[in-house]
Amino acid sequence: MTPAERIAETLLGRRVLLLNHVSPDGDCLGSTLALARALRARGQQAVVASSDGVPEMYRFLPGANQIVTALAADEPFGAAVFMECSTPDRAGALAARAVGVPLWINIDHHMSNGGYGDLILYDPAAAAVGELVTPIVQALGPIDADGATCLLTALLTDTGSFRYASVTPRTLRIAADLVQAGARPVDIYTQVYENRPAAALRLLGMALSRLEVSPDGRIAWTSVTQEMLRTSGTSMEESEGIVGMLRAIGGVQVALLFKEEPDGIRVSMRGRPGVRVNVVAEAFAGGGHAAAAGFTATGPLPEVVRRTLDAVQRELAAGAVS
Amino acid sequence: MTPAERIAETLLGRRVLLLNHVSPDGDCLGSTLALARALRARGQQAVVASSDGVPEMYRFLPGANQIVTALAADEPFGAAVFMECSTPDRAGALAARAVGVPLWINIDHHMSNGGYGDLILYDPAAAAVGELVTPIVQALGPIDADGATCLLTALLTDTGSFRYASVTPRTLRIAADLVQAGARPVDIYTQVYENRPAAALRLLGMALSRLEVSPDGRIAWTSVTQEMLRTSGTSMEESEGIVGMLRAIGGVQVALLFKEEPDGIRVSMRGRPGVRVNVVAEAFAGGGHAAAAGFTATGPLPEVVRRTLDAVQRELAAGAVS
Repeated sequence: MTPAERIAETLLGRRVLLLNHVSPDGDCLGSTLALARALRARGQQAVVASSDGVPEMYRFLPGANQIVTALAADEPFGAAVFMECSTPDRAGALAARAVGVPLWINIDHHMSNGGYGDLILYDPAAAAVGELVTPIVQALGPIDADGATCLLTALLTDTGSFRYASVTPRTLRIAADLVQAGARPVDIYTQVYENRPAAALRLLGMALSRLEVSPDGRIAWTSVTQEMLRTSGTSMEESEGIVGMLRAIGGVQVALLFKEEPDGIRVSMRGRPGVRVNVVAEAFAGGGHAAAAGFTATGPLPEVVRRTLDAVQRELAAGAVS
Repeated sequence: MTPAERIAETLLGRRVLLLNHVSPDGDCLGSTLALARALRARGQQAVVASSDGVPEMYRFLPGANQIVTALAADEPFGAAVFMECSTPDRAGALAARAVGVPLWINIDHHMSNGGYGDLILYDPAAAAVGELVTPIVQALGPIDADGATCLLTALLTDTGSFRYASVTPRTLRIAADLVQAGARPVDIYTQVYENRPAAALRLLGMALSRLEVSPDGRIAWTSVTQEMLRTSGTSMEESEGIVGMLRAIGGVQVALLFKEEPDGIRVSMRGRPGVRVNVVAEAFAGGGHAAAAGFTATGPLPEVVRRTLDAVQRELAAGAVS
């Protein structure tokens, strides 16, 4: 019996609580929804819960309107599934409702997973938890088109549409099975990514218009100020994605976005392979990974820009000799 | 014997000329390079030719540096492969070199294909010609990592990274085989799409900053002027992709880009499913498909914008009642 089949068998006959992590993404939402759907098709009771609700872009997912953000204190469950939660508290306020549930199942693909739970399905080589959940769903019965849409959304959103380094033959074979079962990548992509407000594009336009590049072409940066947010009618959330676009400039090794927040300047950094932007972030008491890191600084914007660029130049020089 | 196996067998023992279409894309270049590579691995002679050379973004493809743009008049070939050429003349100036070649092979997935040639491998359900060429390459022998990179580039670039409506289970299964053989989607994506000049992003920024949306939210448009090209240091080529970004605004049914060219205003239109922008283009003596069409108009920019928006409004109203 595979680990996926063992989980499927264990869930049958239990009332199941499926918990998403805080700030839920397409991977955990698609995975919990598909698993709940498969359990219900087998006559089971399953409740999908998300402490932070469902972001607008994922409300098209079949079953998303039944996701709850609160649970009655006396609602009994026979099993709790933690989806993509490195520790139980990553499920947010609703994690408390799993206390006393007799069986915990921990499904994750992040290196940081703490290894808690009675049953663990953990594979850091999976491009998405959807890749781990699909075999559980298949063990419960044939996947229908709605279930396939949930699982393909998990895979597509966690791999940047099948282009990240995490994509393996298994990822693409599972995606093929899900398309065969009725999921349509074009519809998922349109729902998730082609629904931006016009104001967000205007803000992007302002930020790109003032883009700067270092003389050696290796550093690109721009900023988003409170004044730009007012002019475009946006909030700082809409600045997401800008720094990734700067990283896509030919020759650029490090891209930076300086965000003027009320309490200081938030600096987001992205590096190409071989550059460690977390080293720069740590020097300013921030953190992150080699490819994506950030920190918050105080002081006037031009001063923060100058200090940060100096640190990035030093890191690039250090990388060149190491 | 499958059609792919028949083509593989027919090519063995012949000196093969592989012709790309004019303005070659990742699909035809990746397909011709992979097929030539497989033939050479079997000890055959194969020449890949492209009347328009190789665009910068595809020069990373293994073997791209051996693609020729001219051929000696007396160079003998036993077979000519027309890759993704709806008619032979789509191969450009080099099409003339196929005259007198005893065997023509026509490989295409476009509805417009004219059905010429001695052997035809035609499948409009294929998401890319790479999907049709992979079985030919497999019939010639195991695909190596470089061959897989060429073929995955064909698939990835012709499907917008596996998200267009054309993607089928077969597309994704072939992609899985190619990743298994050593192709890396992240590297291909980086080479093709993450190499933009900073000036192109500044132009994009200017265009998005002046983006307008109709009061009903269904039409979005912006323009690129000669003045913007001068300020950003770009050419009109760098405006590619702008209209597609406008189409991704939530609620927008038709997106338009007005390009101020020396001889008039070039209008590019993109429509969501259900809208026929080609009807608008045809009213102005242009053409295209329901989802993407264009035309050229004369007159001052504000006047062209007004006339075009009126026509788009009429088409949207007509669509609503039909």
